[in-house]
Amino acid sequence: MTDAPGRGPYAKSAARRSEIITTATAVFGTHGYRGGSLRQIAKQLDLGLTTVMHHFPTKVSLLAAVLSQEDAADTDFLDRSARDGFIPTVLAIVERNIGRRELVRMFTVVQAEATHADHEAHAWLQERYASVIPDYRDAIEHDRSLGRLATTRDATMLADLVIGTWEGIQVRWLADGTDPVDGMRVALEALLEPIRR
Amino acid sequence: MTDAPGRGPYAKSAARRSEIITTATAVFGTHGYRGGSLRQIAKQLDLGLTTVMHHFPTKVSLLAAVLSQEDAADTDFLDRSARDGFIPTVLAIVERNIGRRELVRMFTVVQAEATHADHEAHAWLQERYASVIPDYRDAIEHDRSLGRLATTRDATMLADLVIGTWEGIQVRWLADGTDPVDGMRVALEALLEPIRR
Repeated sequence: MTDAPGRGPYAKSAARRSEIITTATAVFGTHGYRGGSLRQIAKQLDLGLTTVMHHFPTKVSLLAAVLSQEDAADTDFLDRSARDGFIPTVLAIVERNIGRRELVRMFTVVQAEATHADHEAHAWLQERYASVIPDYRDAIEHDRSLGRLATTRDATMLADLVIGTWEGIQVRWLADGTDPVDGMRVALEALLEPIRR
Repeated sequence: MTDAPGRGPYAKSAARRSEIITTATAVFGTHGYRGGSLRQIAKQLDLGLTTVMHHFPTKVSLLAAVLSQEDAADTDFLDRSARDGFIPTVLAIVERNIGRRELVRMFTVVQAEATHADHEAHAWLQERYASVIPDYRDAIEHDRSLGRLATTRDATMLADLVIGTWEGIQVRWLADGTDPVDGMRVALEALLEPIRR
């Protein structure tokens, strides 16, 4: 983001905020949330710690901003799935994620830490499952009612498995670049049995 | 492990070593490898840092010991799979993992961090994929040749997907206790199409 002259202090503040979030994404993705620090983030940006703390007074407030980037991207999932079908919609997100590797890595590392009940992002992780799984279940049931999918398996179980498989495949891609779209397509077809027309 | 009297200094040293590995597993599973420290591990055990460093002079030498616990458990995979079938053998390990939650958590957290090419465990992660995937591929092909599996999908792709799915399902189980055996059974049946006899 370029900081055009004349955009005023608000625009400048928003640009600074966004740059802190980007750096925090990389730091949490490398050291984990627990291993990362505001000091480290300030240092990488060549900023004073007080400047960072002006925008994010605590590390946990910065974590919330970092994690909400991920969620904002997929708000229209159900509409897209109703239009294009569940499998193409998921594959489009897997493909888009290839271009946001450090965001996916941060998400993977923080999620692993956050499985601990006393982790700062544990409630976020629980809420995420509680919102994504019913959406995926509904999208799968909708596709089935339209005759797009032949599977007779329980839709909540399928939603669980799609999420689990996706996350596991992304770890592998982060580690050695194995194509996640190919793997995800094969897994989705095996689980959901699309009907070709 | 109890430290029976008369077992001598070697047994005592082995017990101490094993207790350090167990504590390091919990610390790395909570803070990640990068966020954990020998000092923290020593403190939790109420030991001096020099005692810990007598057994593990560097944090990375302790990481190697922690990670090798995981590998040691599955050395007879191919024999078991040839005897009992691939699906039952994988499900037995998923089930056994339920009793080693902190080991699985450590493995999940360190693996996520280790996707970074400059992480201390990155080479370990690459070697793990390089040894597990061909074993799983061979086990799947063997089952197919015996008429146990109907799938015609590429066996290397299937091996990749079994590992990815398994790891994703375990994250969910770590986070909220969702039964990993049930999910894994459904995923394996969808991917591998077992032939019932």
